[in-house]
Amino acid sequence: MHNPDLTILIMVHPEQTGMDEPFADRMAACQQALERRDADVLVLGPGPNLTYLTGIAESPSERHFLGLVPRAGSPTMVVPEMYRAELEASPVEQFRCWGDGDDPVAIVAKIFEAASFDGAGESHPTILLDDRLWTTFAHDIRSLAPDAHYGLASTVLEALRLRKDSVERAALRSAGELADRVSMRLRQRGAAIIGMTERELATEIDRLLEQEGGLGPSFDTIVGAGPNGARPHHRPDETVIGAGDPVVLDFGAYVSADLECGTASYPGDQTRTIVFDGEPPDGYETVHTIVEEAQAAAVDHVEPGVTAESVDAVARGIIEDAGYGDAFVHRTGHGVGLEVHEPPYIVAGNDQVLEPGMVFSVEPGIYLDGEFGVRLEDLVLVTEDGAERLNSSPMTWQPTL
Amino acid sequence: MHNPDLTILIMVHPEQTGMDEPFADRMAACQQALERRDADVLVLGPGPNLTYLTGIAESPSERHFLGLVPRAGSPTMVVPEMYRAELEASPVEQFRCWGDGDDPVAIVAKIFEAASFDGAGESHPTILLDDRLWTTFAHDIRSLAPDAHYGLASTVLEALRLRKDSVERAALRSAGELADRVSMRLRQRGAAIIGMTERELATEIDRLLEQEGGLGPSFDTIVGAGPNGARPHHRPDETVIGAGDPVVLDFGAYVSADLECGTASYPGDQTRTIVFDGEPPDGYETVHTIVEEAQAAAVDHVEPGVTAESVDAVARGIIEDAGYGDAFVHRTGHGVGLEVHEPPYIVAGNDQVLEPGMVFSVEPGIYLDGEFGVRLEDLVLVTEDGAERLNSSPMTWQPTL
Repeated sequence: MHNPDLTILIMVHPEQTGMDEPFADRMAACQQALERRDADVLVLGPGPNLTYLTGIAESPSERHFLGLVPRAGSPTMVVPEMYRAELEASPVEQFRCWGDGDDPVAIVAKIFEAASFDGAGESHPTILLDDRLWTTFAHDIRSLAPDAHYGLASTVLEALRLRKDSVERAALRSAGELADRVSMRLRQRGAAIIGMTERELATEIDRLLEQEGGLGPSFDTIVGAGPNGARPHHRPDETVIGAGDPVVLDFGAYVSADLECGTASYPGDQTRTIVFDGEPPDGYETVHTIVEEAQAAAVDHVEPGVTAESVDAVARGIIEDAGYGDAFVHRTGHGVGLEVHEPPYIVAGNDQVLEPGMVFSVEPGIYLDGEFGVRLEDLVLVTEDGAERLNSSPMTWQPTL
Repeated sequence: MHNPDLTILIMVHPEQTGMDEPFADRMAACQQALERRDADVLVLGPGPNLTYLTGIAESPSERHFLGLVPRAGSPTMVVPEMYRAELEASPVEQFRCWGDGDDPVAIVAKIFEAASFDGAGESHPTILLDDRLWTTFAHDIRSLAPDAHYGLASTVLEALRLRKDSVERAALRSAGELADRVSMRLRQRGAAIIGMTERELATEIDRLLEQEGGLGPSFDTIVGAGPNGARPHHRPDETVIGAGDPVVLDFGAYVSADLECGTASYPGDQTRTIVFDGEPPDGYETVHTIVEEAQAAAVDHVEPGVTAESVDAVARGIIEDAGYGDAFVHRTGHGVGLEVHEPPYIVAGNDQVLEPGMVFSVEPGIYLDGEFGVRLEDLVLVTEDGAERLNSSPMTWQPTL
């Protein structure tokens, strides 16, 4: 049993005046944004916002694992004792560890008291909560400062995370190349894929992603053969892939960012629709051509200054003009960064103006119920004057090139 | 672009008057608990509470995926269009799908208005939010009902989930047997393990878990060789396992519960500490014996009516008496059910009285910095008059039996 009052405040890297790159830059930008928003403190849990600012990549659990970023001064983390070594290896300079017998909320309460974040003295502090913070932890924070104004961390962090810095761009390029290599290896198997179940092929894709250096799949790998491909988020099952079946293959893996301390990984995400052997169904080639054109036109449209929704409109317009508007049942894309789905969303209604450094998927599809589906997806990076595709493997539905 | 007003309210299983077993029983118990607590509505996100009540097992994402359980009447789910087929196959009778152009919050607002959950008419409804609901979604709910009283879903669901029903017990027994089989297969390799890296062995364990029928690891498999074993949550790295190294092996896999509709999986979790070949370090055998005795005494102590903290005290007492109290740096155990860490926590300060149907780990350990660690863990089910171990593989540190 520990006494939180006695928990030692540890200074790591005491010889340094700040955090390591790129975290020092990101933290400074975050604190400037808190200042501009007139917010007092950011409360983060395990998740991409914390990883962005500190390089600490943890999964949420029932244990209090919180990052407190004040508008001015050093951030403090409150973490379970078992993570001490990880914190010591991180760029975070100030942290408090709690043991199984401690009350972590009491530790946060002391920090809040010392900084008047609890609203004592009749102030009404503004506290921004991590968008992904579990409600149970938000509930604890609200109990400490019941009269504070509450908002979401994304109101300061989203704008920062939207524009990828050089470390992030490099990692995303690397994840794109990894997905390309796996895509090429799959194509080369051609007719050997026929007779495998969707589940077997998904397992094989995951194995190839790992073999090519991936840290783990970016999301549950999608293999949708024949009519299953008409369900955009179909889960691989025991369906046997037959000759002539179009197979929607949507996959990617995380790769490590090149950081001096901390860890962060960035996902790949690519979709191709391939007929590994035999004759495709009637109408398939036409549909594939339409989706390929929609994908290419949408990517061509990307440049700084255009809106996210205009990219969706370009892809959708081509598919609608071809008479398949009702069969394109999802948005054209999603941002990709520390999260495989993050802003900017490429969807009607999103008037976000694209800026250099943004990365997102362009993935139109046509889904014909009971027949087949076609989806084609590359990730793109907005450059100073256009877009750079982060994938370069062929779009063709034919296995051999 | 869809109009939420036109979103169709679909009735599934119209011939039935209620949900399928065991979900009908669980939902009825939940609604009775809402009544007792005088709460108006439960708002759930993807996660174990929703899985418990509906069998729907989804990962949280940026898309609004909400379950609204009123005190009386039918629950309604609000889910992305792409999950329509999954909802149709679930026991949930009433759901609304939203497309990419819709505003899911507007759909929830209409449901809240219709049921007066928004606090119109000067009522002050009590809304319980899922403990794991992301703050971004809680924020949306709070904006719809700013004057409501807010609490946590666990205040009604924890007591229900603590006592596992027959479906859950069967799944947990099966997960225990699976971990046992993998444990036995590892032991049989004996000296062949020497020379592998921790990471290689962890990958091999994951492969064996899958081969034995697991759906996926319950958590990141822990392999801690020699001094690495002295860090309870060590992550497998490139350390080569040498002769004489005690190796802490902590793993388990999820297995499917036997349900008529919906899906739910339950995790195994077992720890053994094995010296695969060679002479263990000085003092190791003594430490292993102490931990084994502490584990056995704590399990023997388990029966209805004793407290969670008393189980911790029994294990800790034996380790303290042997002079290693400071080296037992974590709680004795955690509940296991839909979550691999859930109540009851077997820790000082938790006066929860054990009842039949509760399942938790008993996993004392001794961690000697720079030398080695020993942890031994079985899951136990509280029975009418004692405890049933859900694992039966040997505790001995010697690979051969």
